Amino acid sequence: MELYPAQRLSRFTQDVFLAIGCSEKNAALAAEVLISADLRGVDSHGIARLPGYVRLYDNGRLNPNPDIKVVHETPSTGVIDGDKGLGLVVAPYAMEIAMEKAEKAGSGWISVRNSNHFGIAGYHAMMALQKDMIGWTMTHAAPLVTPTFSLEKMLGTNPLAVAVPAMEEPPFVADFASTAVAYGKFEILQRKGLPAPLGWAQDAEGNPTTDSNAVRNGGGLLPLGTDREHGSHKGYGLGAIVDIFSGVLSGANYGPWVPPFATAGFMSAQEGVGIGTGHFLGAMRIDGFRPADDFKTHMDNWIRRFRSAQSVPGEKVLIPGDPEREAEAVRLREGIPVIGAVTDQLRELAARFSIQF
Amino acid sequence: MELYPAQRLSRFTQDVFLAIGCSEKNAALAAEVLISADLRGVDSHGIARLPGYVRLYDNGRLNPNPDIKVVHETPSTGVIDGDKGLGLVVAPYAMEIAMEKAEKAGSGWISVRNSNHFGIAGYHAMMALQKDMIGWTMTHAAPLVTPTFSLEKMLGTNPLAVAVPAMEEPPFVADFASTAVAYGKFEILQRKGLPAPLGWAQDAEGNPTTDSNAVRNGGGLLPLGTDREHGSHKGYGLGAIVDIFSGVLSGANYGPWVPPFATAGFMSAQEGVGIGTGHFLGAMRIDGFRPADDFKTHMDNWIRRFRSAQSVPGEKVLIPGDPEREAEAVRLREGIPVIGAVTDQLRELAARFSIQF
Repeated sequence: MELYPAQRLSRFTQDVFLAIGCSEKNAALAAEVLISADLRGVDSHGIARLPGYVRLYDNGRLNPNPDIKVVHETPSTGVIDGDKGLGLVVAPYAMEIAMEKAEKAGSGWISVRNSNHFGIAGYHAMMALQKDMIGWTMTHAAPLVTPTFSLEKMLGTNPLAVAVPAMEEPPFVADFASTAVAYGKFEILQRKGLPAPLGWAQDAEGNPTTDSNAVRNGGGLLPLGTDREHGSHKGYGLGAIVDIFSGVLSGANYGPWVPPFATAGFMSAQEGVGIGTGHFLGAMRIDGFRPADDFKTHMDNWIRRFRSAQSVPGEKVLIPGDPEREAEAVRLREGIPVIGAVTDQLRELAARFSIQF
Repeated sequence: MELYPAQRLSRFTQDVFLAIGCSEKNAALAAEVLISADLRGVDSHGIARLPGYVRLYDNGRLNPNPDIKVVHETPSTGVIDGDKGLGLVVAPYAMEIAMEKAEKAGSGWISVRNSNHFGIAGYHAMMALQKDMIGWTMTHAAPLVTPTFSLEKMLGTNPLAVAVPAMEEPPFVADFASTAVAYGKFEILQRKGLPAPLGWAQDAEGNPTTDSNAVRNGGGLLPLGTDREHGSHKGYGLGAIVDIFSGVLSGANYGPWVPPFATAGFMSAQEGVGIGTGHFLGAMRIDGFRPADDFKTHMDNWIRRFRSAQSVPGEKVLIPGDPEREAEAVRLREGIPVIGAVTDQLRELAARFSIQF
């Protein structure tokens, strides 16, 4: 594991996207979104995925110069076709349209099809903050999750992010998967040869397991809530909502048909039930409800009251977004840790495209 | 426990609301919403709550003839002041406005203040179905829930309901609290003197507990996810989003200031941080995204694929809304079970208002 300045990882990411044919503007935006994950401590969604995007390109599933288009719209809703572009570029485009609609109609809600992995949901939701809007982002993903009582993997980790501005306090930014844990946690345990806590996954027969390889061996990730007795049907319900808003509403694939991120495999409309991967993004103008300053002052009060709640000794009550903001402060100062296995892959990309890592 | 025809419970509920001064129209609507909970098997939110609404009235917290008003709006957003009316009436009013906005602008989103308990979230979300819209409902509630690492109860069970129409299949209706379980499950165990499963509540020191009285004795309900390792910060995040959209956006109270349902206690804007209890309701026109028939045909496919997923032996994969719909079929046929303790309270109301139970 070595530490790298964000600037350097961002520059390299941009160079790789330029090398596969992205425009300057799109390569810069995609690099910013991708590295924002590393900065915020979400290592699984950052530069570690860069080789995956290149594999998408190699497999003909990524269009480096997409013609992203609004294919249907009303004053506050619409569908965008991402033209197989980088999700890292398609999603910010969709969010801009959502915010334009919110400017005029109070809110804007865009369902996206024909996209692929869009990085961390929180980045796109946070775009709304600077405009005194609430940002809302969801995306489905390839099936890893077994709904309550299912042996089949039917849903992705399907995250939701909501960003809410405050006045003097930093914003409220919830950004979480609809599963007990993200799949990245298993990959870390696999690398170390460690078991997983009970309640994260089930085995191929649907039994609780501590096998950190269970999801690869016929098992599945468990929805938030873990089992029926503790509300797994609620996590399943939340993941299903994300899937329907991202996939069925846009005309993308959905459920078990959502294409895998970076491997080859089906990708065309003919083979699936829709076009590519989908997302759902929205923005609501605060002053579509009440004056923005009133709202933000009350958000300060909300945040301060929750932050000062009496806590379990040795712990504190956090506000959604706190851990990511703290990680960002540290990593901007000290650099971003990248493990050797990832660095090796980045060096391969550097060699292939004759660019400097 | 005795069985009563829905019609009879509905008539009685209507008579009680008439007796406290509601109009014919509002009493009928409130009865329909309240009894829909009993029909759908959500006993904790049905006629068992009727005495609570009367206590609200007795405490001056319920205005039987509210002047419900839109106090601020844009084409797709707005705030409604419920004028201390029955939430059972205020929420459908807000949903009608949301649907009118969706008709014109594609979507409509209403944050409500100065309301109180609105029954089951699912009822209001399902209003959108007949218009080929997706319905979205959230409400906060009095604080019973301890966020991750908190010893203080800061949030209610804050449910979310989303209703999505299909073509030939019955609709998808997710309606769930952002906690491991609803508080009603503890009340059932208390009555029977039984312990609760670990993972539902914590005790006053923040430890896991099986004490079904823990929440009354200084403990708290746990967010969906139960503990940090299994994602309780996600359930906390979801409950917080519901609170902010219902309370901070509308100008209602929020967090620990949300007034209790049926007991006396603070209620005025002076004592809290806003006005009454809040909700958030929304509607999106399906054809604001894609033709409704296309969408509903794909929803049929979604539902059938999930329903036919290979399941754990002896179980089946359910679609959100299945259990409630099955309960409704049985209860329309056989009647609604009401426990003796509730019947006694209903008889007291009958005597007080000289109406027939």
